[in-house]
Amino acid sequence: MSFRIFTKVWQRRTRNNSTVLASFSRTFSQLSSRPSFGVAFDIDGVILLGNAPVGGSLRALRRLYDDAGRLKIPYIFLTNGGGFPEYKRAFELSQLLGVDVLPSQVVQGHSPFKQLVNRFENELIVAVGKGEPAAVLTEYGFKNVLSIDEYASCFENIDPLAPYKKWTTKLVADQNTKFKDGDSRNDVCSQRVHAAFIVSDPVDWSRDIQVLCDILRTGGLPGRNIGPQPHLYFANDDLEYQTAFPSERLGMGAFRIALESIFNRIHSSTLEYTSFGKPHPSVFKNAEIVLQQLILPPCHDLRDVNDMNTRCFKTLYMIGDNPSVDIRGARQAGHPWFSILTRTGVFKGKENDNNFSADLVVDTVEEAVDYILRKECTS
Amino acid sequence: MSFRIFTKVWQRRTRNNSTVLASFSRTFSQLSSRPSFGVAFDIDGVILLGNAPVGGSLRALRRLYDDAGRLKIPYIFLTNGGGFPEYKRAFELSQLLGVDVLPSQVVQGHSPFKQLVNRFENELIVAVGKGEPAAVLTEYGFKNVLSIDEYASCFENIDPLAPYKKWTTKLVADQNTKFKDGDSRNDVCSQRVHAAFIVSDPVDWSRDIQVLCDILRTGGLPGRNIGPQPHLYFANDDLEYQTAFPSERLGMGAFRIALESIFNRIHSSTLEYTSFGKPHPSVFKNAEIVLQQLILPPCHDLRDVNDMNTRCFKTLYMIGDNPSVDIRGARQAGHPWFSILTRTGVFKGKENDNNFSADLVVDTVEEAVDYILRKECTS
Repeated sequence: MSFRIFTKVWQRRTRNNSTVLASFSRTFSQLSSRPSFGVAFDIDGVILLGNAPVGGSLRALRRLYDDAGRLKIPYIFLTNGGGFPEYKRAFELSQLLGVDVLPSQVVQGHSPFKQLVNRFENELIVAVGKGEPAAVLTEYGFKNVLSIDEYASCFENIDPLAPYKKWTTKLVADQNTKFKDGDSRNDVCSQRVHAAFIVSDPVDWSRDIQVLCDILRTGGLPGRNIGPQPHLYFANDDLEYQTAFPSERLGMGAFRIALESIFNRIHSSTLEYTSFGKPHPSVFKNAEIVLQQLILPPCHDLRDVNDMNTRCFKTLYMIGDNPSVDIRGARQAGHPWFSILTRTGVFKGKENDNNFSADLVVDTVEEAVDYILRKECTS
Repeated sequence: MSFRIFTKVWQRRTRNNSTVLASFSRTFSQLSSRPSFGVAFDIDGVILLGNAPVGGSLRALRRLYDDAGRLKIPYIFLTNGGGFPEYKRAFELSQLLGVDVLPSQVVQGHSPFKQLVNRFENELIVAVGKGEPAAVLTEYGFKNVLSIDEYASCFENIDPLAPYKKWTTKLVADQNTKFKDGDSRNDVCSQRVHAAFIVSDPVDWSRDIQVLCDILRTGGLPGRNIGPQPHLYFANDDLEYQTAFPSERLGMGAFRIALESIFNRIHSSTLEYTSFGKPHPSVFKNAEIVLQQLILPPCHDLRDVNDMNTRCFKTLYMIGDNPSVDIRGARQAGHPWFSILTRTGVFKGKENDNNFSADLVVDTVEEAVDYILRKECTS
């Protein structure tokens, strides 16, 4: 089901988060008492394999809603994946999972990029990755964003393999509404790129590594040499992740290794970059804030929540399939996080993981939710 | 001008090399004395930039033929590039350069792969790279070759980014005449891959690195784990090369670095591979043999030439643009090689290269040929 068809409707339905959040919070306020726990679900390998539900995820999620379809238990999706604005991903998940997922329940690898808007709001930045990376950053408030497809199209012959990738040329020609005339194209060529954001898994590695090396080694102006390396941000550093294929597939961390190895070989100074996503502690701190916002009145904004001395939650459950990402992250975050490892994704061991042992190991997400609800006496 | 249109005609004209070589050698035998020197031209950055002649290459090459269009001076193209069988590349060069280039005058990075036919003649091997990598290996005599496009199409979901590369799916569907039914596809999945050949610059890095890692880490059967790493051969190890873009573009050496860095991170034992191409000494030894074959009667085959104690040539000129590849290789090869460095490609210095100084530095290939002909008194 195409995003494009539903985008406008969905934007009207969900873009005004405060309204949504208000009615959503009332759902909880109507309960006798607010839940003292929340749940964060990884998606790939826990809820979905590719686009197919796995591990009884549909039944598991349904148990978090009441008969009227109102949320009983505060939960979010905490994924390192991405490529689309949160409201679009929420809509896609609603379609795939049969529950009404709110944009505020979707925390993606690139969600922390919002915090960098003040720094690069009006600077030229380049967005890399599958899906709609430029739309993601524009949605966050960046005002001068080009996808790497659009950016590369400004430089003739920058990709020597382009003749073998007619699809890319076509894609750029179709999408490239920014460059109706040569002037605007030349204008871009003369602007310094201040930062590159790897929003989601890059698709065209040879072109992307080449163009990123051109941007990063020249100080932001391919073909010239005018300054220090522009900033480089990765939404996550996942080396491998589980999809429908039997063995794990290479992720953004593998792309980072490829880019870094090549850059460090062709450039005198080593590549500097910042990676976000799990297991970074800030991701779990932010997840706690987002979960709190789900059950607090809308008047409480992020800052209020941070200032609170008392926590809303006694326990927060992280359900993931990747020991080095989900479990490691939850353990580093400490109280109130409780880590649950499933066997439907990266982890396939009989016992616990040797390097990053979880508080609990189960076969499926359905077992995990069953354990949580029994333990919290709300099932 | 499409290869496909001219292939059959050209094959009839040139596939029977012995006939061509016979008449070709007679050209020299008619001369009062055989030339005591020969020339090896690099292509990218010396003869062509992209597909455009550079450095007066058309005029330079024409001086190597007599008025009747017969070759006066034995020369070959000694390039690390490739992707098409030698007879096709010779035809393309004839079209671009306006002289009648013979397949026997084209030595590409992957030409040494011929020597491996006996080892893998009937084994399943995978061919990687732009152009027609499988056709190249089939032309050499390998009997069980699949392009990585065809091979990857046998494994559902092996490339998680495939949905973003509809062109590849289409390409495989169009070209994939081998798999009319599911059985032959399954048959391939159950065969062990004995070797992977990187014939030319890979196009789809993310898919190729993923599938090569699958092949190499499992012993040749993606999804299983049955044995030691299959053999891996690279046609060259060029980190960067010059095209029409102002600064060098990443080559096969960069792809090797990316694959090796990722493989060594996800696998317990380090990647094993063999790289061919300049500056490898064997390339220059082979080039000398090929040049000798051009001027000797057809009865002399490769073995005879090797057995000869006396050399045909007093001097062999290597004209290249890349100090670390062309010049380094010619210097390592020693007598009778004389290295000439041009400024139309990778090298752009005023004096000589600091690391691999050439015997002579000139601006263009036309200057180089002028120097050679004046020195050899045959101009």
